[in-house]
Amino acid sequence: MLDVCLLGTSGMLPLPGRWLTSMMTRFNGSSLLIDCGEGTQIAIREKGWSFHDIDTILLTHFHADHVSGLPGLLLTIGNSDRTEPLTIVGPKGVERVVKSLLVVAPELPFELVFKELTTAEETFAIKGMEITAFKVSHSVACYGYSIRIRRNGKFDAAAARERGIPVSAWNRLQHGQTVVDGDVTYTPDMVLGPERKGLKVTYSTDTRPVPQIAEHAAGSDLFICEGMYGEKGKDAKAREHKHMTWAEAAKIGAKAQPTAMWLTHFSPSLVRPDQYVADVKKIFAPIEAGKDGKTIELNFEDEL
Amino acid sequence: MLDVCLLGTSGMLPLPGRWLTSMMTRFNGSSLLIDCGEGTQIAIREKGWSFHDIDTILLTHFHADHVSGLPGLLLTIGNSDRTEPLTIVGPKGVERVVKSLLVVAPELPFELVFKELTTAEETFAIKGMEITAFKVSHSVACYGYSIRIRRNGKFDAAAARERGIPVSAWNRLQHGQTVVDGDVTYTPDMVLGPERKGLKVTYSTDTRPVPQIAEHAAGSDLFICEGMYGEKGKDAKAREHKHMTWAEAAKIGAKAQPTAMWLTHFSPSLVRPDQYVADVKKIFAPIEAGKDGKTIELNFEDEL
Repeated sequence: MLDVCLLGTSGMLPLPGRWLTSMMTRFNGSSLLIDCGEGTQIAIREKGWSFHDIDTILLTHFHADHVSGLPGLLLTIGNSDRTEPLTIVGPKGVERVVKSLLVVAPELPFELVFKELTTAEETFAIKGMEITAFKVSHSVACYGYSIRIRRNGKFDAAAARERGIPVSAWNRLQHGQTVVDGDVTYTPDMVLGPERKGLKVTYSTDTRPVPQIAEHAAGSDLFICEGMYGEKGKDAKAREHKHMTWAEAAKIGAKAQPTAMWLTHFSPSLVRPDQYVADVKKIFAPIEAGKDGKTIELNFEDEL
Repeated sequence: MLDVCLLGTSGMLPLPGRWLTSMMTRFNGSSLLIDCGEGTQIAIREKGWSFHDIDTILLTHFHADHVSGLPGLLLTIGNSDRTEPLTIVGPKGVERVVKSLLVVAPELPFELVFKELTTAEETFAIKGMEITAFKVSHSVACYGYSIRIRRNGKFDAAAARERGIPVSAWNRLQHGQTVVDGDVTYTPDMVLGPERKGLKVTYSTDTRPVPQIAEHAAGSDLFICEGMYGEKGKDAKAREHKHMTWAEAAKIGAKAQPTAMWLTHFSPSLVRPDQYVADVKKIFAPIEAGKDGKTIELNFEDEL
């Protein structure tokens, strides 16, 4: 089970009743956050999710509305008795930027581990999740992220018995591990069926439409995408500020065909996002306007 | 007229419905802010006061809950079309700390002017206000501030006429300026009565009780003072964390005798501040619990 919460939907600056755009997931006792703007810690508290369990923070880029809540959040995580290391992933310079912000919070009771993204695309494993960072197109280096939870094939007990694999090895094989028993090696493919559909969430904010967004959003159960401007006549502004209109975002949705799609990172001028939804549903029907605190529980198909 | 708003009352971290402690004033078209924690810009927006007019920011000290909202606020002030310089006053290192935070907001459309406090007490003039910074006692260097608006004596037109002072000089003399007219010098004391009572606001957070707080709060129309702990049995905790109990704050009030006194910087454990007010009123009757957005309009006595 993967819980996903869109903590906020504001772009540029936080507003009364609209927190800055960020996303939080819970999977297998571990929480992950994408971006942390001013007030994100209050949004987490309103949601009631644990600070202590935040193991990973992915940063899309280093504009203030995406990172300036870090000192406060990290201090609050420290006050939740966390002592285990916390990993922060971000574009080139992530350690310098975060440490610069931490001038006002120099002492934390846990270690920070930094992972700097230096290539256009990078996949890494963290707490049972496979995370792919992919570079998008903003005024500064900016990444989108796909979070994937893979699902092994079904365990075939009959096949395991037939091959004479000892029962003591079954559990490890079932979890995808290779088992060496004296001279004999058992591999998962001996007892597992084809990989089943896992879970995938893709998140992309602060970017012009570029092909890699749809490529990564394809096959996602949920695709959270920036939509800075919902109103008509904002195309030039979107290009100028390196953001997207809702129509541009919807076209990416139509290409990627995720199961669900939520727009976020609304301009302060977008006072009533709901009134622009019908128009973009004509481009991609599943699209919805994000809302602060909007949450979904994603389950493996055979566990529904 | 001096408007004073206590923008928030939370200490340590921002909570849903309780912004971090900071204060804003408006005087003569110029606004001043003391401290800027995570979310302070949202509190200002809720209050509806102008971002553009913020000319001065006084920082008490460099703990995250008092300064980490600066990047977001300064960007928002920039978006309000401000181009005039903005002065930031704070303890030693103020320029280094603020510039370190601004790693995520490197470009502002106005100049920042820094004023570093290096002595235990310092008085300076800014935008028609006389500001005194006084060192208090916290775990890091921390200052309280008094803001004073002086009020010249009444202009005595009869005396001016008697002395043969030309009418063209009256206005400047009335505003405390010396006028040289050929060989003759006219000074304000020739035509002004004794200085009248002005306005004074004193603000002190994050400190143990030390004598200089009462010394500076004396004669204030409003004294805003930290009161981290309202509940009984928190004396040791207050000493350990270099904060104050409400009783300790009330004793300062009783000594200083300000006209009004508001407590602020409440611990997250202080869920219902109001229930502790009656007890400390026995020590100093005018004391009140601060509330987010609590505002007062202070006027010169003869303009009421």
